[in-house]
Amino acid sequence: MNINELTGITGDTICAISTPQGRGGIAVVRVSGPQALDIVQHRWQGKQLADMTSHTVHLGQLLDSNGEILDQVVLTIYRAPNSFTGENVVELACHGSTWIQQQVVQTLIDAGCRHATAGEFTRRAFANGRMDLSQAEAVADVIEAQSRAAHHVAMNQMRGRYSDELKSLRDKLLHFVALIELELDFSEEDVTFADRSEVTALARDIHGVISRLADSYSDGNVIRNGIPVAIVGQTNAGKSTLLNALLRDDRALVSNVHGTTRDTIEDTMMMGGTLFRFIDTAGIRQSSDAVEQMGIERTWQAIDKASVVLWVVDVTSADTSMAHDILNHCNGKALIAILNKTDLDDDFAARSELNDLLPEGTPVVAISAKRDSDIEALRSLIVETASLPDVDSDAVIVTNARHYQALTRARDAIARAIDGLDHGLSGDLLDQDIRECLHWLGEITGTITTDTILGEIFSHFCIGK
Amino acid sequence: MNINELTGITGDTICAISTPQGRGGIAVVRVSGPQALDIVQHRWQGKQLADMTSHTVHLGQLLDSNGEILDQVVLTIYRAPNSFTGENVVELACHGSTWIQQQVVQTLIDAGCRHATAGEFTRRAFANGRMDLSQAEAVADVIEAQSRAAHHVAMNQMRGRYSDELKSLRDKLLHFVALIELELDFSEEDVTFADRSEVTALARDIHGVISRLADSYSDGNVIRNGIPVAIVGQTNAGKSTLLNALLRDDRALVSNVHGTTRDTIEDTMMMGGTLFRFIDTAGIRQSSDAVEQMGIERTWQAIDKASVVLWVVDVTSADTSMAHDILNHCNGKALIAILNKTDLDDDFAARSELNDLLPEGTPVVAISAKRDSDIEALRSLIVETASLPDVDSDAVIVTNARHYQALTRARDAIARAIDGLDHGLSGDLLDQDIRECLHWLGEITGTITTDTILGEIFSHFCIGK
Repeated sequence: MNINELTGITGDTICAISTPQGRGGIAVVRVSGPQALDIVQHRWQGKQLADMTSHTVHLGQLLDSNGEILDQVVLTIYRAPNSFTGENVVELACHGSTWIQQQVVQTLIDAGCRHATAGEFTRRAFANGRMDLSQAEAVADVIEAQSRAAHHVAMNQMRGRYSDELKSLRDKLLHFVALIELELDFSEEDVTFADRSEVTALARDIHGVISRLADSYSDGNVIRNGIPVAIVGQTNAGKSTLLNALLRDDRALVSNVHGTTRDTIEDTMMMGGTLFRFIDTAGIRQSSDAVEQMGIERTWQAIDKASVVLWVVDVTSADTSMAHDILNHCNGKALIAILNKTDLDDDFAARSELNDLLPEGTPVVAISAKRDSDIEALRSLIVETASLPDVDSDAVIVTNARHYQALTRARDAIARAIDGLDHGLSGDLLDQDIRECLHWLGEITGTITTDTILGEIFSHFCIGK
Repeated sequence: MNINELTGITGDTICAISTPQGRGGIAVVRVSGPQALDIVQHRWQGKQLADMTSHTVHLGQLLDSNGEILDQVVLTIYRAPNSFTGENVVELACHGSTWIQQQVVQTLIDAGCRHATAGEFTRRAFANGRMDLSQAEAVADVIEAQSRAAHHVAMNQMRGRYSDELKSLRDKLLHFVALIELELDFSEEDVTFADRSEVTALARDIHGVISRLADSYSDGNVIRNGIPVAIVGQTNAGKSTLLNALLRDDRALVSNVHGTTRDTIEDTMMMGGTLFRFIDTAGIRQSSDAVEQMGIERTWQAIDKASVVLWVVDVTSADTSMAHDILNHCNGKALIAILNKTDLDDDFAARSELNDLLPEGTPVVAISAKRDSDIEALRSLIVETASLPDVDSDAVIVTNARHYQALTRARDAIARAIDGLDHGLSGDLLDQDIRECLHWLGEITGTITTDTILGEIFSHFCIGK
């Protein structure tokens, strides 16, 4: 199966609006495919497209299917293979009325284009070898990025730093295979491979690099999905009110995290240029009720996944009976203790009780979530307390769950090979592990992939990219 | 005062996002001004901008103010005067995340750009003689256009057909002035101008053209603001319910007409590719109440302005006591009689009563606005009944209220001149009228204008255009 069939590229010419939806000064409609120039020429009044050199811009009129002038457009021509997709590409910058945008797409479809599916331009760029799969995925990440950190990591990936690292890993693995096969070739002559130390060193090096990449996912996940902040405490301590108060000022920037249909409520917001993901949890109380026990279990899990824990204590009851359990689970996390409902009671008694319980240096903030008082101070404290991943380094950070899964499998395979080497396993068995390792890395870059995987990846793109 | 001062162009370099708001595959940030190339060069990693020829496209990296890569962008260069604004223009096509878009604008501002005000690019195009004022206004109309007709007329205007007509009028008026001044030069020698017939013919020609333009505004207004459809009838006949039923299916396309804060409710919608403006009116009933009388007076005014009148009759009461008044006001309009509330009563009695009253051939439709039944048939009938302006002709159609006002004043002035010629008025008096006529035409094209007028016009543009 060749890559074009695999990637579903059928040789037709596609078009779509590439700029955001809605009305603006201008909009850009992109056309890509072998017939891009011919099709646009049918609707073009201006210089002959065939005479235009690549990367030049021309003013002219675009016509509708009746030959009437639809719009005055600026046309940019990119000749294959020097375009985003690697095909002939024509970009039409038209006036930005929604009516014109629709009509431009319609006239191109009437002239022989097909409307592009989600991510199809990028998919073609991948199919034509303009980028590997990890770079293609980074295109979507760049467009999704809401923070400097997410943007920086996605840009690095799109520009190929990650691909380079994977390519270098692949070269090392192929070198490993060569060494092993050399041994196998001589095995019939009963010449065992004199020195396996070079192979072992190589395997450990590969394992180190794959491990570093896989481990970077904990940072990558934080960058992409936000720093997880768990809000925990007794039932009725005001956790949900606090969540709302924290999110209120920036509702426009708030979005529901997809796929969280569990009993915990998650919402993201930007604070100080960093994305945070707040996780509201079920209230904790000693209970023999099986359902409540499950809720509490989920709360412990939320804490385990969190980088920052906000422990909310109601000053009017100051119930700290579960303090021991909570503090146990917060070990190693950034903890902030919050005295809530200061509108109902002052916090002195509760504060002194908490101070006795908390590890030294734990910040304690008194707020009223309901009255929205001192919430801004709490926000600043959360930003200060959270340890932000170092994104300014140029080390590759993996942000993609699919890649993380492939990397852990590749790591398992190379670990088995190392184990095999340590136990003097024969070359053909080692060879299997290395080929599996290569397979998983190939899934990331797209050299080994299936139509299903590609379909899944590109369906998350926007149309026009 | 030179035109640059007048138009508020200060020689600085401006930037703005030109594509619609929001996230997309790509977005375009436009930079215009004498320093456009220098400023972008400060943030550019790629080929030297100074070496690039106009109308070429280059891939490179845009940097933030710390010198870090912000995005991979496609840069298009337009050298003065061959650009939209007539200045040096750089267009940056960046990835379409809202974050990147904001950052690109920010880095350009940090490097010395000023954020453009609404319509400032077009205002500069006008100031630099790339288009006259009527063409500049057409740019906004093109972007606003919601229908083929509105788009066609705006395109014609933007492409200069209207300007050509005004220019030709101006030439004729200047010729008129020349002829009159020739007469004045010879007046001391007591040589009266032998034959005034050439001058009179010229004046009548000018009057004819201006009249045609001014008269086209009734079509132009319909194209731009929608075909006015008045909904009238007795109180409680279900007029507002009908309005809602008519609009319901296409709420997304419905917008409130700006500035209608009177007692009539106006809403526009597209039907069959044409924009209609529905005007709900106060119910009509014989009344001595002064306030109600005023409401009824407004209803008659609404009918006067309408092209189509929907007369709604309640079948349950079939009160046609005001029929005479209504029909009188509908003279010359497209009238549709509507029997409403068929869910409560059958329409036979009312229909036969109406048929006796209505002019022959008047369509009668039975509906239930409340139950939404037969509304679609009514919509089709409205589209059929309305006489749509012929937009396929290339005759210039005036759509702008400002222009219409200037044209009627110009027409008054030339009419006075013709009157003066008929009465043998002296040349210096005729000269005054002609200069006034020139003045009003100059207001349309912007050769004679004030900063206030320009400010008002461009404030209605979107940023980035």
